Amino acid sequence: MNLATAPSTVDSLDTPCLLLDETRMTRNIERLNALMAGHGVQLRPHLKTPKSIEVARRLMSTPQGPAAVSTLQEAEQFAAAGVTDLLYAVGVSPAKLERVLALRRRGVDLTVVVDSIDAALAVARRAREAGDAIPALIEIDCDGHRAGVQPGNTEQLLAIARALHNEGACLRGVMTHAGESYGCDSVEAIADMAEQERLAAVGCAEAIRAAGLPCPVVSVGSTPTAHFARSLEGVTEVRAGVYVFFDLVMAGLGVCAVDDIAASVLTTVIGHQPDKGWILVDAGWMAMSRDRGTARQRVDQLYGLVCDADGKVYPDVLLAETNQEQGIIKVRPGSGAVLPDLPLGAKLRIVPNHACATCAQHDAYEVVRRGSPDIVAHWERFRGW
Amino acid sequence: MNLATAPSTVDSLDTPCLLLDETRMTRNIERLNALMAGHGVQLRPHLKTPKSIEVARRLMSTPQGPAAVSTLQEAEQFAAAGVTDLLYAVGVSPAKLERVLALRRRGVDLTVVVDSIDAALAVARRAREAGDAIPALIEIDCDGHRAGVQPGNTEQLLAIARALHNEGACLRGVMTHAGESYGCDSVEAIADMAEQERLAAVGCAEAIRAAGLPCPVVSVGSTPTAHFARSLEGVTEVRAGVYVFFDLVMAGLGVCAVDDIAASVLTTVIGHQPDKGWILVDAGWMAMSRDRGTARQRVDQLYGLVCDADGKVYPDVLLAETNQEQGIIKVRPGSGAVLPDLPLGAKLRIVPNHACATCAQHDAYEVVRRGSPDIVAHWERFRGW
Repeated sequence: MNLATAPSTVDSLDTPCLLLDETRMTRNIERLNALMAGHGVQLRPHLKTPKSIEVARRLMSTPQGPAAVSTLQEAEQFAAAGVTDLLYAVGVSPAKLERVLALRRRGVDLTVVVDSIDAALAVARRAREAGDAIPALIEIDCDGHRAGVQPGNTEQLLAIARALHNEGACLRGVMTHAGESYGCDSVEAIADMAEQERLAAVGCAEAIRAAGLPCPVVSVGSTPTAHFARSLEGVTEVRAGVYVFFDLVMAGLGVCAVDDIAASVLTTVIGHQPDKGWILVDAGWMAMSRDRGTARQRVDQLYGLVCDADGKVYPDVLLAETNQEQGIIKVRPGSGAVLPDLPLGAKLRIVPNHACATCAQHDAYEVVRRGSPDIVAHWERFRGW
Repeated sequence: MNLATAPSTVDSLDTPCLLLDETRMTRNIERLNALMAGHGVQLRPHLKTPKSIEVARRLMSTPQGPAAVSTLQEAEQFAAAGVTDLLYAVGVSPAKLERVLALRRRGVDLTVVVDSIDAALAVARRAREAGDAIPALIEIDCDGHRAGVQPGNTEQLLAIARALHNEGACLRGVMTHAGESYGCDSVEAIADMAEQERLAAVGCAEAIRAAGLPCPVVSVGSTPTAHFARSLEGVTEVRAGVYVFFDLVMAGLGVCAVDDIAASVLTTVIGHQPDKGWILVDAGWMAMSRDRGTARQRVDQLYGLVCDADGKVYPDVLLAETNQEQGIIKVRPGSGAVLPDLPLGAKLRIVPNHACATCAQHDAYEVVRRGSPDIVAHWERFRGW
């Protein structure tokens, strides 16, 4: 989009494009901030969802951070915008340490993550060579979801801790992520998962400290567990990302309401197949992503929930199928819903399954506020690695 | 990537990134060119797959085209690079006509697609106002897959044709796309689908001509049907896109071999969960896309087939699960395959389900040639709408 001719209302935007409802976003941010203040725990927002400095500034407790990132590209972009307290929350490979060191030389307190002795030794040795004790967290596998040391495996945990501490890195603590919380079927189950996540991290931190090693940071988090944790005792920081926008997966989990979802794709009606009960729109999988996270939930929202141009949901009207640049809107079978009468050229918003994936298909947010068609800002996103 | 310090071999690339094997790509291009030459039919390559002028120049029969695009952003980018014969192969919405007219004023012979009287009238009236008879194809729905006039609905077909012809547009012909060919279970079924596609388009063209209206263009195509059509009699051009790179969906259909797939994602081992039989890599769904096209096929390749850094397949070793920036490699259950012994930092290539979707996650191709680790070129991609 040419900013010199930036459109001033939703109706004048080229489609498909990404809308961000700032009113809803602000409410989402304030909600988790209040929860964390109640726990007395620092929030470290994960910036992999927004990938935008404008959104990051609204998420972070200070312009310098703290924040988490999922790529070094994010770290470099946010560092360039003045963020200095960053956790690169994905296991680091040895080849990536040069970019880590370069960022640290620029004054960024960038922490890395390891979950093996090999990785710990690679970090520690490169740190010693470079004369910079790179800080590292040890990843703990609290739920079998992904990477990390098994919570009961104290031998491996301490071997990694000693490799970091003795060989030249800075042993900063432990981190874990309850990725399995996305598969919970009740708020109670999420709260149980939050406790499992906490106990895994705190237990490992205690084991490290009992061995006479430092463990100042105990970092946990996922959007579901962050919202329903009963206790964060022993935890020093919580990470969460998708809560800034929320999405249909989070609504399906009961973490938010559909009405809280701040990101949507604006699309235009490009055709009809009345005999089939279809409306065709210009949002295909390129605009929505192929993410179908709700397919595993009780209510499958297919490629997304259809709203009018102002964001009002048409109940049980779904983006049912997608081609690269075309989507097919249908009513949910058996719902009794009626396809709305929408002429060629009508604009709609599609609420996505997974905000991280859908937003990643776009280069910018067109920012709106609740109840107004005005575009109040155009915030760029970045991408890549 | 900073071009001033562009790496010279696969081993020195930052991961994840997109590799393009130029040797395989050239073979894929030559194969379809030869098939089309045998039929005596013009190929109009679909540039939505590569979104790169360097690749487009190798695909097109002349530097000016012809070619097809799926967005006006593609049309604008390729026009800026000198392509002047373009089909915007997605039903046009009235608001997009201003960008269509702007391209046409710059000398681009850009054709649009309509499938309703409303759309035809919108195009024709705007064309008349602008004093530019925008050429349009009428989309035919040959297989119930997407948009288009039903082949038997001659009344609607002729009403659209007359609306274009009489109200100010240029009725250029008909187009159809056998999207259902992606669901065929044999080469014979693809050939049958190609014949169905041809008959739908040719039949509609004949109906238009019998009504005394012009129909110079009869455009058909999908990568599967383009490769297995028994006859293209009456067809004036064939469109195909994904054949330039191929992918696991096309291999599963029998359109190509895995060894023909030219696009892959280079990734690095970032961890191991030996008790679970997992290798973790830095290619998650951000690098691969969420596309799981092979889930509907006889052999589900999950998120992709794992190869060594030179591109040699590890049989039945798959990228089984993905998070945003992490992937989990496992052996196919029941296959008897053994997980390769790959240390932290080892590089791998992942062959994707769907080249269009995976390539869209990246901003450039790192170009290699078969059997050599050298990066011979860095070709940028574009995106957006």
